[in-house]
Amino acid sequence: MSQTKTRRPKAETPKGFRDYFGADVTARKAMLDRIAAVYHRHGFDPLETSAVETVEALGKFLPDVDRPNAGVFAWQEEGAAEGKPGDWLALRYDMTAPLARVAAQYRNDLPSPYRRYAMGPVWRNEKPGPGRFRQFYQCDADTVGAATVAADAEICAMLSDVFEELGLGGDYVVKINNRKVLNGVMEAAGVLDPADPTRFEDERGIVLRAIDKLDRLGEDGVRALLGEGRKDESGDFTKGAGLPSRAADVVLAFTAARRDSGAATCAALRALVGTSSVGTEGVDELEEMARLLEAQGYGPDRIVIDPSVVRGLGYYTGPVFEAELTFEVLDEKGRKRQFGSVAGGGRYDDLVKRFTGQAVPATGVSIGVDRLLAALTAKGRIEADTAGPVVVTVMDRARMADYMAMVRSLRQAGIRAEVYLGNPKNFGNQLKYADKRGAPAAIIQGSDEAARGVVQVKDLILGAKIAQNATLEEWKERPAQVEVPVADLVATVKAMLGDA
Amino acid sequence: MSQTKTRRPKAETPKGFRDYFGADVTARKAMLDRIAAVYHRHGFDPLETSAVETVEALGKFLPDVDRPNAGVFAWQEEGAAEGKPGDWLALRYDMTAPLARVAAQYRNDLPSPYRRYAMGPVWRNEKPGPGRFRQFYQCDADTVGAATVAADAEICAMLSDVFEELGLGGDYVVKINNRKVLNGVMEAAGVLDPADPTRFEDERGIVLRAIDKLDRLGEDGVRALLGEGRKDESGDFTKGAGLPSRAADVVLAFTAARRDSGAATCAALRALVGTSSVGTEGVDELEEMARLLEAQGYGPDRIVIDPSVVRGLGYYTGPVFEAELTFEVLDEKGRKRQFGSVAGGGRYDDLVKRFTGQAVPATGVSIGVDRLLAALTAKGRIEADTAGPVVVTVMDRARMADYMAMVRSLRQAGIRAEVYLGNPKNFGNQLKYADKRGAPAAIIQGSDEAARGVVQVKDLILGAKIAQNATLEEWKERPAQVEVPVADLVATVKAMLGDA
Repeated sequence: MSQTKTRRPKAETPKGFRDYFGADVTARKAMLDRIAAVYHRHGFDPLETSAVETVEALGKFLPDVDRPNAGVFAWQEEGAAEGKPGDWLALRYDMTAPLARVAAQYRNDLPSPYRRYAMGPVWRNEKPGPGRFRQFYQCDADTVGAATVAADAEICAMLSDVFEELGLGGDYVVKINNRKVLNGVMEAAGVLDPADPTRFEDERGIVLRAIDKLDRLGEDGVRALLGEGRKDESGDFTKGAGLPSRAADVVLAFTAARRDSGAATCAALRALVGTSSVGTEGVDELEEMARLLEAQGYGPDRIVIDPSVVRGLGYYTGPVFEAELTFEVLDEKGRKRQFGSVAGGGRYDDLVKRFTGQAVPATGVSIGVDRLLAALTAKGRIEADTAGPVVVTVMDRARMADYMAMVRSLRQAGIRAEVYLGNPKNFGNQLKYADKRGAPAAIIQGSDEAARGVVQVKDLILGAKIAQNATLEEWKERPAQVEVPVADLVATVKAMLGDA
Repeated sequence: MSQTKTRRPKAETPKGFRDYFGADVTARKAMLDRIAAVYHRHGFDPLETSAVETVEALGKFLPDVDRPNAGVFAWQEEGAAEGKPGDWLALRYDMTAPLARVAAQYRNDLPSPYRRYAMGPVWRNEKPGPGRFRQFYQCDADTVGAATVAADAEICAMLSDVFEELGLGGDYVVKINNRKVLNGVMEAAGVLDPADPTRFEDERGIVLRAIDKLDRLGEDGVRALLGEGRKDESGDFTKGAGLPSRAADVVLAFTAARRDSGAATCAALRALVGTSSVGTEGVDELEEMARLLEAQGYGPDRIVIDPSVVRGLGYYTGPVFEAELTFEVLDEKGRKRQFGSVAGGGRYDDLVKRFTGQAVPATGVSIGVDRLLAALTAKGRIEADTAGPVVVTVMDRARMADYMAMVRSLRQAGIRAEVYLGNPKNFGNQLKYADKRGAPAAIIQGSDEAARGVVQVKDLILGAKIAQNATLEEWKERPAQVEVPVADLVATVKAMLGDA
């Protein structure tokens, strides 16, 4: 494209990116501040890594792919002076990979265990879709260096505390499960051989993905995927894991093993894993977590063992957890459905080992910030700060200094205020502007008022309230506009705002 | 590099990037929260654009450069289905370019004038150096759509309020100047021809850069650059603007035109610009800004007209401003010097026009967050929250549930607390951990204490204070460790923390 004429650039966000205005920003900030307070009280320290990592440190890539950009935004640094090829850099796609890098890089300086939280944007080079953005916020908490399931229990309890803090008590449940139990079930189903852990790897991957689709496909669909395979509505065929029917029964029994109490669920799981030692270990861990949570008062109304939760990520090695919001919302087709998952996590004991060669146990959770904020908004649990400023209008351009002095006195009294800075010629535009800004009041002082040392204070909330309500009755007593001495401006506005 | 053996990735931040831990994060957040409150009170609304923009929207690039990565981190999107080349995307290098894009994109929806603030990281693909990072924070406030210098005056006043709010009263000065005055001086010096504005463009660029180096090169160095050129210590020659000696006198007189009062400075400038109409307009604007600021009580101790301030950026079209911190710090060679510039800005009336073709007046300021935070730290004006959690130690691994219940009771009382989650075998390691965490207290309960229903509460602040002071005298009365009933744990810790 070598055009000689300069053409105007398009004023557009790149595809899949978006801008956040005003209350969008402050509402998210208010939510994150409250979550950070919970994390802080639990002893977690903030960590902010940079947005950019080396592709090597992020992992996930084949070393000999020319452009390793599958799923991430990546670019190559310019070569060094010696003509060496530059490093590949990329935007982080989550908060866990940078944490693993930090835990390895600063392993001699950080306390161990290291509890940290991280909040910020992550980037995914995926096809954007409705409601799917390529930059979104995550809010993570992880403990690195703690092998005990007490660390996993703490993360789950803290997650529960976060929801309580946000006013979602009774509207959520944290579900816990354990990958070792699933491995035990795989062993019992004949797709895991403890003597040769890499055997049947593909089959296990299919089983994991099949269970993860239980919600959508139902038991029959999953059974098909566990067996020969499944033809979907469009006629496409997905190859199955090839499990014999009896093995599929074991796997399906696992996903349906949730009972009325944690103890009963664990007993059912123990029967399913049979003699598998890893499976037994997993059930022991679940029981221990349940015991620790119970002792702190987190009952099954808040945290529950649910074997249908497996989490998609391959790197989990033990406990996995997922938080669901249980209240109903209407989906795009107007059908009621549960709000669903807003957070997930688990134990990943091998991520730091990539760097150091030494195993470092780690566990953590990631909250999907945008979804949680949407939930709070749906429940009316977020007070978005939408109060506009008091607008001082400009009747006489030559007296701007006086108007700015009024604004200053309002601001000094802690009142959000501004002077109209557009072209003051059309006074109607100034009131339209005040309306667009959500201004609670407008201040007016023409030459006549100035000569008499007074200002007009116009109550704009009143106007909005009258518009909202059918009847004017309750506002009849209230004057829509008052004239006060300039010296009383601040007190008058204060009273009007307090009254709002 | 096609290695068949997998080698371990390096655990390193990419060159020029860094990680922020604990108090680094909370101190910056505390500062930004306070600045945001000032911006909010002035009627500015938050805007958060995404980190990624199209290279086209960011501007600054030649359209036919194959890889437009000079100064920015950029990459090309994968091509669309039709085989078209993908868009070039880039990380934003400041907050102003995205604002110009937003102002154009949402011009029918945003209030006008639009006051917005933005805080966040920006990225520069520059050679990293000591203290120079490729990702750093900016904190901007801008008004788009206001042609009046009242908008510039407001920005300067707000900047002054920010410093007062941060406890830097008396330690800063906001310097203002006007590019139109400089243009008038250029006209008087014969390097600006109002009839042909593009003539002498190179010379004017050299003059601008020369003035910007006044601090470093002194009057003689700048005079050389205004004339034939200058040989630096290494012998390298920089070509000058070629101004005749009398013209150089005019420019130098401009930079030295600051007088005791704003009125006197403006009179000196008026004499320098002679008959130049743009120059006269610039002096008028300076006078108007000074008048508006004076009326609000911002005297020359806070905001002052200083013609030596020109700001490097080419896009400024009117008022320019710069905030300097005036207290002294020691530089790397141990010499006293003023802390220097921490914020700058000005009016840029042509940035939105790039997109729409229509002129949209705009003005704003950018605070260098890292430098300002360093200044606050140097002045002891930031209370970094370094209080560690109370650490409940683990004497008996089997009784983890009891320890976690203790932690929970502390947390429920609002006390930051955690249980030790490492291997509890070596008790000394647990106390070392508590020390590293900055824990104010450690809780100890062995089987003996458990049997008696008591806990030991160890005062770790006391230990640290004793270590700090030469004498133990004042701490003699205070017990380093107390034994209390489990039921009194929370009250005891509370009293100890209140006492700290």
